[in-house]
Amino acid sequence: MNAVEIVKKKRHGRALTKDEVDYFIHSYVAGTIPDYQVSALLMAIYFKGLNDEETRHFTNAYINSGKLVDLSHIKKPSVDKHSTGGVGDKTSLILAPLIACFDVLVPMISGRGLGHTGGTLDKLESIPGFKIHYSVDEFIKHIEKLNVCMIGQTDELTPADRKIYALRDVTATVENIGLITASITSKKIAEGAKAIVYDVKVGSGSTLPDVSSAKKLAENLMRTSHDFGQKAIAVLTDMESPLGYAVGNWLEVKECIEIMNPALEKSKLSADLLEVTLFLAGVMLFVTGKAETIEKGIYSAGEKLTNGGCYSKFLAIVENQGGDVSVIKNINSYKQAKLSDEIRANKDGFINKMDSLKAGLASVELGCGRKHVHDKIDYSAGILLHKKIGDKVKKGDTIYSLYGETAEKIHSCLKLLEESLEITETKPELKSKIIEVID
Amino acid sequence: MNAVEIVKKKRHGRALTKDEVDYFIHSYVAGTIPDYQVSALLMAIYFKGLNDEETRHFTNAYINSGKLVDLSHIKKPSVDKHSTGGVGDKTSLILAPLIACFDVLVPMISGRGLGHTGGTLDKLESIPGFKIHYSVDEFIKHIEKLNVCMIGQTDELTPADRKIYALRDVTATVENIGLITASITSKKIAEGAKAIVYDVKVGSGSTLPDVSSAKKLAENLMRTSHDFGQKAIAVLTDMESPLGYAVGNWLEVKECIEIMNPALEKSKLSADLLEVTLFLAGVMLFVTGKAETIEKGIYSAGEKLTNGGCYSKFLAIVENQGGDVSVIKNINSYKQAKLSDEIRANKDGFINKMDSLKAGLASVELGCGRKHVHDKIDYSAGILLHKKIGDKVKKGDTIYSLYGETAEKIHSCLKLLEESLEITETKPELKSKIIEVID
Repeated sequence: MNAVEIVKKKRHGRALTKDEVDYFIHSYVAGTIPDYQVSALLMAIYFKGLNDEETRHFTNAYINSGKLVDLSHIKKPSVDKHSTGGVGDKTSLILAPLIACFDVLVPMISGRGLGHTGGTLDKLESIPGFKIHYSVDEFIKHIEKLNVCMIGQTDELTPADRKIYALRDVTATVENIGLITASITSKKIAEGAKAIVYDVKVGSGSTLPDVSSAKKLAENLMRTSHDFGQKAIAVLTDMESPLGYAVGNWLEVKECIEIMNPALEKSKLSADLLEVTLFLAGVMLFVTGKAETIEKGIYSAGEKLTNGGCYSKFLAIVENQGGDVSVIKNINSYKQAKLSDEIRANKDGFINKMDSLKAGLASVELGCGRKHVHDKIDYSAGILLHKKIGDKVKKGDTIYSLYGETAEKIHSCLKLLEESLEITETKPELKSKIIEVID
Repeated sequence: MNAVEIVKKKRHGRALTKDEVDYFIHSYVAGTIPDYQVSALLMAIYFKGLNDEETRHFTNAYINSGKLVDLSHIKKPSVDKHSTGGVGDKTSLILAPLIACFDVLVPMISGRGLGHTGGTLDKLESIPGFKIHYSVDEFIKHIEKLNVCMIGQTDELTPADRKIYALRDVTATVENIGLITASITSKKIAEGAKAIVYDVKVGSGSTLPDVSSAKKLAENLMRTSHDFGQKAIAVLTDMESPLGYAVGNWLEVKECIEIMNPALEKSKLSADLLEVTLFLAGVMLFVTGKAETIEKGIYSAGEKLTNGGCYSKFLAIVENQGGDVSVIKNINSYKQAKLSDEIRANKDGFINKMDSLKAGLASVELGCGRKHVHDKIDYSAGILLHKKIGDKVKKGDTIYSLYGETAEKIHSCLKLLEESLEITETKPELKSKIIEVID
C-alpha cells in the first residue's frame, strides 16, 4: 500500500477501507509512515470527514495498537462516564465512588484539562499524594479491591490514539467528529467498561456550541460503542454557565466533598451540579441494569449520596491510591491561595449570564489550567460563584471570588470574569441542565 | 506568531498575510516549523486555495529564500520558456539555442521527468558528458559566453520551493493552482529572465486536462510574473497526443538534431512539433522585442532553424557544457536499446487517437522516466510514432516501435500503447496544436 495514494483518496472524498486505515495507523505507530503524511491525511479528513464505517476502522485500529483491560473475571457489571469537557464539571469525582457503591465496576481513565475546560486528572492530583499512574495490571487489582479506580491515560492502552491526538493538537485537526469519536470510544472500549454514559456538553463552555453538532457527536459515539458491543447512552447537558459554584482544581474537589460528607453543612449546595450528577448516576445505574428506569436510578443514587455511603467509598479510593485522607477529612487545612479578589454587582437586578467559556479562560489565567503543555498548575487557584443564573442581586453584592498566586494573574482573570457577567432587570427563565437523553 | 493558528486560519478559508507566509516559509527552511505542520497547511491550502495576494506572498517568500541571478550587466534582453509538462515535449532543446542566436539571453533552468511527463534535464543528460549542475556564478559565465546555458535546479535558488515541493510530492498536495503558480514563477523570476513564455499544456497527457483550468493557471502565472515586473505571455497548446514522433530521452534529442542539422535528411519531420516550437519561438522573440509580431518572430525563427544557425549554437552549448559533440554529429553511433518490438494496425482506417497519457505511462514502463525518486533512467529506451493522428493506415502497418532493456519492460509498454490507440473508418478533423495565446 502507498501512503500518498491513501491521502489522495481521502482528499478526493472517497472512503478508506479497513486495510488502508490499519496500514496507515499501524505504520505510523511503527514509525514507517512519517508525521507529515499523517497530518496531511488528518487535514484531508477534516475537510472530507469519515463515514460510520471509517470511524469504526479508526477506532478499531486505535484499540488494536495496545492492550485491552479485561475485567471479565469479576462477575459484576461495569460502566464509565465520559464528558466532552466543561467548566466546573466535577461530576466524575462523585460518580465514580457513588456508582461503585452499587457493586458496579467503574474503570475510570480520565484526561487533563484542555484549553478552557478542566480535567478530572488535574482535580485528583490536587489531593496531596494521589497517584494517577498505574499499570493495567495494577489498575485491575485496584478495581478487584474497591470496584473502582481512577487513573490517567497509560501507554499500554490505545497508544495510536495518543500519538495521533498529539499530532492533531499541533496541526489544527482536532475538530472533526469522526476523529473525535474514534479517539473517545477507543479509549472507553480499551479500558474494559461494558457500558458507557456520554455526557455531551452543549453551549458556550463546551467544545460543541450548538445542539445539532452535539447531537451528531452523541449519535456517532453511541453508534461506534454499539459497533464494539458496548452499551451506551448519551445525555446532552447544558454548559452555558459553569457547573456548581467552584471552578479550579482543589476548590472543585472541596465542593464535591461538601456534597458527599454528611457531616458538613450544606449551605452552599449547587442545584445544577446535583441535578446533572444525579441524572448521570441514574443513567449509569439504568444502563448497567442496576435500576429499572433512569428515575429509579436517580432515586437510589440520591439515597447513597446523602447517607454517607458515597463519601466512605471516596475516602477508600483516596487512601487506596496514596492520597492524603486527612485533607479530605479537614478540607480547610488545604494550602490557601496567596491572593484573592472579588467581583461585585454594579447594579441591582438578576444574573442573566455567567458565560462559562469566559469563566473557563479566566480560570486558566489564574493557573487552574495550562497554556502550554509544560505549565505547572496552581491547585489552590480558582473561582467561586456566589450567585447563579436567575439569582437576584443588589449593587455591591459579591458575585465571584477569585484566588491566585500573583497580582498579574488576578488582574487578567478579573477582566474576563467581568465580561462573563450580565445582570438584567427581569429574571431570566431557568432551564433544566439536562437537554436530552439519546438512547 | 503561532504555526497552529496560521494553519487554523487557512483551514477556515481566511487569507494569510505576507508576515504569516514569510514566517511560515522562513521558519520551515530554518527548521523551526516541522514538516507535519507544513503538510497540514498545504492540505488546508489544497481545499481552501490561495488568492492572488497570497500566491504573490508565497512566490516572494520562495524567491527570498535564496539567491537571485543578476544578468543586468549584459545589455541584452532575456527570456525563458516554461512548459507545464507533456509527452514528447522536446521544444526546449531547440528553443534554447534558437533564441540565443538572436542575441537574446536564455537562462534556462529545467526540471526532471515527473510522473508520465518527460523532463528537459533527463533529455540533456542522455548526451554523454553533458553537465547540468553549475553554481549561479558559473551559470552567469556560460550565459556571458554563449547567451544561453541549460541547467538543473540549484540549491542556491529558491531553496524553500525545493523543500516544499518535495513535501507536496509525498503528501498529495501538488494539485493546487496557487501552489503550482508560486513554485513555477518563483524559479523563473529567480533565474534572472526578464521575460517568460508559459507553454500551458491541455488534454490527456498534461497535468491539467481541461481548457478552463489550464486557462486559469495561465492567467495566474502571468499575473504573478507581472507582479514581479517580469513580462509574460502564455500559450495553451494541445497535449492529447505526443508531440513529434519520439518519446524517450535520447530519441527526443535525436529528433531535435534531425530538425536542426541541415545536413540530415528530413523524411521524418513532425509537423506538430515544428508548429509548436516555431510558435513558441515567435512568442519569445516578440516578448523580448526582437520581433514586431508573433508572426514575424515565427518567420525569423524558421529561417534560423533551417539555415543551420540554431544547430551551430546547439553544438556550442553541448561542447561548452562538457557534452560529447561526436554523438551529436553522428547520431547513429549512440548505444542502441537491447530489445525492440512493434505495434501494428489491426485494421484499415485512420488514426483517430494516440493518447498521450497512456503513451507517457508506457514510456515510464520502458525506463524513460522514474517510478521512484532513485530509479535509474534508460536513455536509449523509448517509443517512435510511425503515424500521427489523421494518418491513413492499412492493417499490418507499423504504428509504434518501442525500445527497451528487458522483455518485461517491453511487455508492460505494449499493453498501454495498444490502449492508447484508436483507428476509425473516417478521417478525424485535424486541429492546430496552438489552442490560445493569452497576453
